[in-house]
Amino acid sequence: MYIRDVDSQNEAPITDRKRALLDSTVRVIARKGVRGLRVEEVAKDAGVSVALIYHYFGDRSTLLLSALLHIGQRAHDYTRPNVDGDARTALLATVLGEIQDDEEIRENSAAWGELRDAAIFDESLRPTLEAQTREWVDDLAGIVRRGQAEGSLAAALDAAAIGQRLSALVEGMSSRWLAGLVSTAEAHALLAGAVERELPER
Amino acid sequence: MYIRDVDSQNEAPITDRKRALLDSTVRVIARKGVRGLRVEEVAKDAGVSVALIYHYFGDRSTLLLSALLHIGQRAHDYTRPNVDGDARTALLATVLGEIQDDEEIRENSAAWGELRDAAIFDESLRPTLEAQTREWVDDLAGIVRRGQAEGSLAAALDAAAIGQRLSALVEGMSSRWLAGLVSTAEAHALLAGAVERELPER
Repeated sequence: MYIRDVDSQNEAPITDRKRALLDSTVRVIARKGVRGLRVEEVAKDAGVSVALIYHYFGDRSTLLLSALLHIGQRAHDYTRPNVDGDARTALLATVLGEIQDDEEIRENSAAWGELRDAAIFDESLRPTLEAQTREWVDDLAGIVRRGQAEGSLAAALDAAAIGQRLSALVEGMSSRWLAGLVSTAEAHALLAGAVERELPER
Repeated sequence: MYIRDVDSQNEAPITDRKRALLDSTVRVIARKGVRGLRVEEVAKDAGVSVALIYHYFGDRSTLLLSALLHIGQRAHDYTRPNVDGDARTALLATVLGEIQDDEEIRENSAAWGELRDAAIFDESLRPTLEAQTREWVDDLAGIVRRGQAEGSLAAALDAAAIGQRLSALVEGMSSRWLAGLVSTAEAHALLAGAVERELPER
């Protein structure tokens, strides 16, 4: 989920105020879903007027798309510190970084799931969802390709397929984790097992 | 997703009429989500009175739990024909059977995702969701164990972990498939790759 989070009007970095409004939007989506999202609730969560939200985002649809980009940026921020080190270690840390005992990460993950599922019926969300998913898949694939270039991972590995499978597994495991069906430790052990299977020792 | 779908009052098999009402419930959940589900819409879809639905299911909460069980039974029916043959082939066919170009399967998958995500905040759904997920995981693990008993799969494989990972991957891949981000063929190829990695040739 790695599209850079820029102001769509002028491509300047988003302001702190706008970021705070998007944090509130993500929180409300995580709790109430997308279908039930009312701009009034976002305004209440953020402690601002509804008019201010419309001033910044224009309409509800733009607010949702901005929230989707913001979720990607947040995920980028909490998984990115993990990509140093050899490719195998980096891939594992990036995958495990998606599931952490942290309220912001839980909210981010829940809101991502809500927006992804809303896109089944709301086609306006799809291009952004697709771009975000592609960036995420490409990021994981890029770590595999770096390992291949460095010689630590087998050249025969299909980096793109590994990126697709590991990101889809994270999505499925996150839903299970958010619903309390697996603990953080169980989710990590299962994800680590998947990384091991995708990257067999040479 | 394999709990048997019985009438909770008398443990007799559910009637055709009740089954038709649950089919409608699944369809409405798939389209409108759980939070937005109104019993009136289910009645309209089924062409019956709201009173009849309350007669059969008592209240909205029981209707949702019955729908969750019904989804499991439906998934059982469309993946179960695939479990013949050697364990590797059976596991692959069962996993691929979850994603098919079939409107009922798409609805089932979408409704399952909606109920699973609703369970993040609706604790009344959790025990049933947990039981259904466990049955599904156990079913996949059981195929692996059968292969181990028959000697076609390595004894060292962790059947339970394989069941957890493959079912979670199916959930993540299904969401992506339902949102149109991967085609049925792409999803099948990716899932087949995961089965290959989980069950290395001896």
